[in-house]
Order: sequence, then structure tokens, then C-alpha cells
Amino acid sequence: MTGIPSTGRSVTPRSATEIRQYDLETDVVIVGYGCAGAAAAFEAATTGAEVVVLDRTSGPGGASAMSGGEIYLGGGTPIQRACGFEDSPEQMAAFLRSALGPGADAEKIARYCADSVEHYHWLVARGVPFKPSLWDAPAWVPPTDDGLMWLGESSRPFTEIAAPAPRGHRPTAHDFGGKLLMEVLVAAAETAGAMAHFDTTATNLLVAEDGTVVGVAARRYGREQTILARRGVVLTTGGFVDNDAMLAAHAPRLRGHTKVSAGTDDGSGIRMAQALGAAVRHMSAGQVGISLIPGFAARGMVVNDRGQRFVNEDTYPGRIGQAALFRQEMNVWVVLDEEGYEAVPEPQRWGVRPTHVAETADELGELMGLPPGALTATVSRYNEFASRGIDPDFHKAERWLRPLTAPLAAIDVKAGVRPPAESGDRRGTGASVFTLGGLHTTVDGEVLDLNGDPIPRLYAAGRAASGLHGEGYISGTSLGDGTFFGRLAGRAAART
Amino acid sequence: MTGIPSTGRSVTPRSATEIRQYDLETDVVIVGYGCAGAAAAFEAATTGAEVVVLDRTSGPGGASAMSGGEIYLGGGTPIQRACGFEDSPEQMAAFLRSALGPGADAEKIARYCADSVEHYHWLVARGVPFKPSLWDAPAWVPPTDDGLMWLGESSRPFTEIAAPAPRGHRPTAHDFGGKLLMEVLVAAAETAGAMAHFDTTATNLLVAEDGTVVGVAARRYGREQTILARRGVVLTTGGFVDNDAMLAAHAPRLRGHTKVSAGTDDGSGIRMAQALGAAVRHMSAGQVGISLIPGFAARGMVVNDRGQRFVNEDTYPGRIGQAALFRQEMNVWVVLDEEGYEAVPEPQRWGVRPTHVAETADELGELMGLPPGALTATVSRYNEFASRGIDPDFHKAERWLRPLTAPLAAIDVKAGVRPPAESGDRRGTGASVFTLGGLHTTVDGEVLDLNGDPIPRLYAAGRAASGLHGEGYISGTSLGDGTFFGRLAGRAAART
Repeated sequence: MTGIPSTGRSVTPRSATEIRQYDLETDVVIVGYGCAGAAAAFEAATTGAEVVVLDRTSGPGGASAMSGGEIYLGGGTPIQRACGFEDSPEQMAAFLRSALGPGADAEKIARYCADSVEHYHWLVARGVPFKPSLWDAPAWVPPTDDGLMWLGESSRPFTEIAAPAPRGHRPTAHDFGGKLLMEVLVAAAETAGAMAHFDTTATNLLVAEDGTVVGVAARRYGREQTILARRGVVLTTGGFVDNDAMLAAHAPRLRGHTKVSAGTDDGSGIRMAQALGAAVRHMSAGQVGISLIPGFAARGMVVNDRGQRFVNEDTYPGRIGQAALFRQEMNVWVVLDEEGYEAVPEPQRWGVRPTHVAETADELGELMGLPPGALTATVSRYNEFASRGIDPDFHKAERWLRPLTAPLAAIDVKAGVRPPAESGDRRGTGASVFTLGGLHTTVDGEVLDLNGDPIPRLYAAGRAASGLHGEGYISGTSLGDGTFFGRLAGRAAART
Repeated sequence: MTGIPSTGRSVTPRSATEIRQYDLETDVVIVGYGCAGAAAAFEAATTGAEVVVLDRTSGPGGASAMSGGEIYLGGGTPIQRACGFEDSPEQMAAFLRSALGPGADAEKIARYCADSVEHYHWLVARGVPFKPSLWDAPAWVPPTDDGLMWLGESSRPFTEIAAPAPRGHRPTAHDFGGKLLMEVLVAAAETAGAMAHFDTTATNLLVAEDGTVVGVAARRYGREQTILARRGVVLTTGGFVDNDAMLAAHAPRLRGHTKVSAGTDDGSGIRMAQALGAAVRHMSAGQVGISLIPGFAARGMVVNDRGQRFVNEDTYPGRIGQAALFRQEMNVWVVLDEEGYEAVPEPQRWGVRPTHVAETADELGELMGLPPGALTATVSRYNEFASRGIDPDFHKAERWLRPLTAPLAAIDVKAGVRPPAESGDRRGTGASVFTLGGLHTTVDGEVLDLNGDPIPRLYAAGRAASGLHGEGYISGTSLGDGTFFGRLAGRAAART
């Protein structure tokens, strides 16, 4: 179509009646070998079903393997208790309903929280190690191997909504633990009997005359394959951050930023199911990581291009990221003083340095291109209250409040670097994004059509589905709901 | 489904092979008799095609008839020229690409702007009256019968993007002109030969074995009807603000506010087409009217719940509305002084009165529940620069800048009233919304599937389609693109 950007290859479902012989027959086909695919494969295979996992790349892992590895767990896990924290499924659910909204899925959250301790034990039984120690400061990824971290629970507005308890559970690893997590989950799936077919790209769903999904068509080294799934197909293909036409249609604010993906999050599973009449939810939503060092932000101020603060700087940094991209068009700076800068050890700075330094707030604001006097007014107000240990504007916790003293430095977040685990050119737009929207599913992973009815034998989990999330995000909820609802989807598909 | 909100009755397409005899046969079926349906009906009938327009209510009009009647036109219309303004399709397009973004449809905008003068003459030829006089202040709807109004073109940021020219064209009527517009368009369609069937609710598309749309199933007084469309079906069913499950899935921030609709914008056309594999765009986007009197805002300040300004108050008020709802959770106030209040004649105040009055900004801020000293700081800064005729923070035009003098008043926008033309309880949440997202169409109104290919003989226009808009909005672009692309869709359907 002239002027209409292509979303990719045809995803129109194919009629199974035209297929005389399948290249492969199995019980459950899982499309995509990230965390949701691995969890689904383990559970399906454990029931005794024959399971084949397809992945278009030459090995498992997907975006999950590139992640920090945090898993959002709570309700009183052994790690929480060992660190001295009480928690309950109800408090955890209250937090998630608020933090993942508006539009968070209350039913999925209720189930996720009720079974979170069980899910913790399942992960441990698979071999995921968690260390019972707390990293007690805002961070994207702690620089230690601490197994527990805060993800906004101890900051406003959440302290007003639920009893604070840290719920970020990290596999024992320095820095990014996603690789370890995926190694463990893939080994578990393989041991349970799941077979993997790599370099195999699912292209279309195969559908019987009555609308039941009976398999997938795929391509492997240019040759088409047809695969029969006697019991069900589970789509765990990830989100669509790598599909620019889909971003343009659904989430234009996410375009042009660094993509958090393995390069294969092209929305193919979402589109294949939509072409069969599947419904989607929250396609505009996205997680926004920004090149802001949480330790700097908490000890200073985050301001927009009018020199105004707009968020409590001690909150989960992804909340600052969403506010920066969706509300401030990424025109944001961290302003801090020498004491705040030096308080963050060099390795935790990820190479981020001040972009401007000045003797006065007025001079600094001028260097930053802010309206005259704006930064001075903001710093004066901040300091006046910080000296009394309060922040009436945004309620940053007293622990982080201290008047800033000249000289002052500003860090332009747009000019910042990306986290070290992300490859390639380390200079970006200051934002690293992935999509949260996807297929409308039941708690058990059934993909629903436009009428709200399940499409027979079609399942989805992970970022191919709309999971716990509405428009908000908290680290650990992707690996968390990917593994948790991946398990449920794998079980449901196997018992069909 | 337990816990899954129903989006309504089944929209699964039905196979035409099961239909032995149709209740009605025609060339073109148009579903929904708002402005897009009327424009499509006129054009299709004018080509000589037999046209039937269905509407579920007992008469034409839809949400269009309840609107202010503004149509966004430019590029040098006779009204613009009579009022002394130069304009070009290029400047108009530059404005719309910015104002309707991110994600605005550049191809549709280019065509819309290139043919805007022609569309003006088409409207006039149908009998829509426009008076060559300008209302020269920000307004939702001018209190006069002036035919031309500014819709943000003369304010930041747009003055930096395109040469300012007013493009809001209003049918000659006091206050709301949508009723007049619809009377004219419906009369034109009827005169051209289009037949209307009221109290008839389209429920499902009828589809031939090869996927071609061949008609619709409908219900009339509880009885099912099948209607054959020899040439094409045009969906002009409106948006989905009346479908709470769809809002929850796609636009959760729009939930709970006053709905700008005739009560029938339940997304049925969007869902019917999606069930056939149609793609959608920008389903999260919405227009936000707020109970803010633009004349008050321009003469005062708009502040959030930290007492900060966040927008230039002289811009198109819908921009303030989107910022208020999407960025400030509707926690917004207008702050002004007696001179500003009195400058707006009583009838233009729509009954809006100060919610708080005080002798000092400090005291007013306290009454409003703002952080201590915040409002005083904002008023001081505003006044300091206003006395010099500048607004370095938001670049409100000099015309509206004047230091505010005590006593000061605040108007809580959340407590405000709705525009007088909206019926029922006049107290709302302060916001009146409708949806902008819909079916992915070509410029000619062809509905595209997930592959980007047209679904044979299926067309859409108006708010059932994603039109010019990405996430932004300007008044007059709904009636504007509804009538304009309705015309193109009607022509395309008739010539199929």
C-alpha cells in the first residue's frame, strides 16, 4: 500500500484443510524461547505432553536473557522474611494495582500475588538462586549480589497505598541476572522433555474449519514447515518494540529510542493472533528506562526544561522514566552537588558525568538553557524545605533530603549513556523502551477474541500478551508475569 | 468469561453462503448517520449508486449533531481571505502534523489540506453557511455567530512551526452549530437519493467465502435483517467512548468522565471489522474538553496541585485539557484576579464561578490545598515577567500578560460545569471526552487488515476510523475529517 508502512510478512491464518502431511507433529507448540516460553515448556512437558519450542534465533533467551533478572515476588517470601520484612498478598496486590495502572488487570494481579510465594519456590526448585540480603537504595540494578531490592514500595505515592515491603527478587549475580535465569529455565524445560527447534520462524497459525488452532506454519532456512499441535499453541513471542510500523500505530512516543530487546520483538505473535480475530489491550503502554543514575537523582533533583521538579526522585526509576518520556518529552536533567555526586561510588555511575557545572543555580540554569531564574527558584525552595527534612511538593523521603550547596552540576538525561549490558553504540536518546501491550488473555493464558470468548487452543504469555500491566510498570513484573502466566498457559495448553 | 468485561454482543463475521434471501438489497450500505455517514451517503448516491444508511437510533445526527459544529478548514478559504488571512495547504499541514501528533497521519493530512478549499466549497454548496468574521480569543465555542476562530495556530508552540492563520470554520449559528450542519448534510444525502433506515442496529458483517464483505446483518425491533451491499459497506459508526470495556482495554485514562456522544459510540463498527482481521491505530488517544473557561485561563494562570504552571494558557483549550487529564490527573485550577474575571462577559462564563477567593496568594494556595508557598512563588514569578510583557516559561502571548493583583480567585476545574449543550447532570469530573482511535484506513477509506492489505469492499470514516489524528487533537478535525474522508469513502465504495 502506498504510504502505509508494512507491518511485515502476511500473518493471515491458514486453513489446515489444505495440509496433507505435517513436517512435525507434537502436542504443544510454543513459539518463542524467552522466559515465558521456557516456563510454559517446562509445565507442559511436566504433564507428560510432547512439547516443541520454536525460536527464530539460533538459541534460547530472547530479551529475557538480556534483562537485569529481577522478578517481582512477595506476599512473604523466605527472602523477604530473612531480611526482616512482613508482607501479604493483599498488600502486594494493592501496590501493583496502583503502580501498574491505570488499567492494571486486577484479576491477574490477584492470582499473581496469591501464588507469589509458591512461584518463588518453583523458581528456587528449578535452580534460581536468591541471596537473603537487601540493597537499600533506588537502583535500576544493584551493583552487588543482594537478592532483594526496593522497586518503589517505600516511596510516595505507594507508602500511602500499601505497607512498604521490598519485592524485587534478584537471581544471585553481579549486575544483570537475566542470562542466569534463562540458563536455569531452559535447562529445566529441556530436562522435563521439551524439544527446541531453533532458526525456526513461526509465520502463520494453522486453523481447522471450526476455528480451532491446530498448529503453526514456520520457515527454517527459507523452507516452509508445518507443525501440528494436537493440544495447543502458546505464543510467547515477546512485544513489538522492534516493529516500527506497530509503534507508529499504537505507541508513537516509544519510537526512535533504544529498544530493549534481542532484535526479534516484532509483534509477530500478536499480529498472527489478531489476524484470527484476537483482541489486544494497552498497546500504547511502554516501560521507559532512562540514563539517569538513581543514586544521583535521589540525592539531588530532577527538573524539566522549565526548571520545575515533577516527581519524587527516590521512587522506582522507571516511574521517573515514564514521566520523563510521556510527560516531559525527555527534556529532563538531574541537578546535584558535589556531595551527592561523590556519594555514589564510581562503578555505580555507569560513566555518567555532569554535562554542566556552575557556581550558582542561576548560572547553571543559563548553561542548561532554562528560563531565567527558574532553577534558582526551584533550588531555593527545595533547600528551604530540605533543611527541615521535608519535601511538601513531592514527598521525597527525609533520608534523601539535604540542601544542595554550590557548586552545582547538571546531567542532561538525553545526553546520557545506556546501561552497560546493552550493546552497541552507548549514546542514545537517553531512553530505552519496550512495549507492554499485547493479546487479551485469561489468567490461564487463553487468547480471547473480540467477543471475549477464547480462541480454541490458542494461548499466550509474556509480552506477547497484556499481562498484569495497564499503563504503569515496575521492574520484575515482566520476568515475573512472563514466568508465572507462562506456567499457567503451558499447563492449560497441555491439558486441552 | 469470569472477570473479563464483555465488550458487547458477538461481532463475529457471518458467512454469506448461509443466506438464501436478503431482506434488502442495495449497492452501498452505510452504517451510522453522523457527519461521516451523511457525507459518504451523499457522494455514493451522487454517483448513481443505490445507498442505504442505517442508524440504530430513530433519526440521523449522532454525536455530530451535538457538537459545536466547527470544521477545520484552511489553505486559503474565502472566509480566511475575507478576514484578511493568508494561508496555504503546506502551512496548514505543518500545523496539523504537529498539533495532532505524535503519530499523526501525514498522508491523510497532506490530502486533507491540499483539498481543504475544495471541501469548503462542497460544504457551502450543500448549504452550510459560514460568516466572514473572526472571533479573536481562545474559546471552546465563540458566543457569537462569527464564522472563523483560532484553534491554537496563534500560540506556542505552533507559532514556531507554521505561519499563524485561523482555521476553525463555524456554521453560522449561535453557540453549538453541529445540529445545523447535520440538518444540511442529511438533507443533501436524501436529495441525492440515499435511503435511511432508522432503529436498525448493524450487528455483523456478512462475508463471502473469498473474504469479500457483501453486506451486514442488523436488528430492527428485535428482528434480524440481512442486507446485501452489492458494491461496499461503509462503517461510520463513531468511536467507542460508550463502551467501558473498550476504554478499560485501550484508553483507561478516559474512563469515568463525561462522554461526548449520543450514547451510541460503543465501538461496534470497529469491533465488527476487527473480528474480520482489521487493524486499528491509536486506540489510546482521546480528546479532552475540560470545564475551563478559555477567557479566564488566558487572562490568568493554570496551575497543578503543586502550584506549578504547565502550559501556555492562551493555546487551544483542548491542549490544556489533554495536559490536564493525561499529565496532571485533572488536578488543575485556574487562578485569576478580579480584572481577569470581569473581562469575560457573564454569558461566556457558562456559570463557572471561583471556588476559592483570598487576599493573598499564600492564603489562596492554602485554601486550594497546595504545598505551602508554592502558589506565591508561581504568582510572583508570573507577575515579575508579565509586568515586562514576557512569559519565558511558557511563552503566552504578550496580549494576555498582565500582573495579577490581589484579591485572587481560584477555580477548581474538577468542580466545574459542563458546556450548556451537554444534557443531564451538569456537574461532572471536569472532563468531557471522546475517543480518537479506530480502524486503520487508506486515504480512500479502505479498511486495512493486519498485513496492510484492504479488506475487499469494506470502508470506514469518521471516528470509527483512525483519521488525521495521532495522540493530539484540535477542534474541527472530527467533523472535518469525518465529512472529508466520509466523502472519499462513499465514492470509493460506490465505484467498487
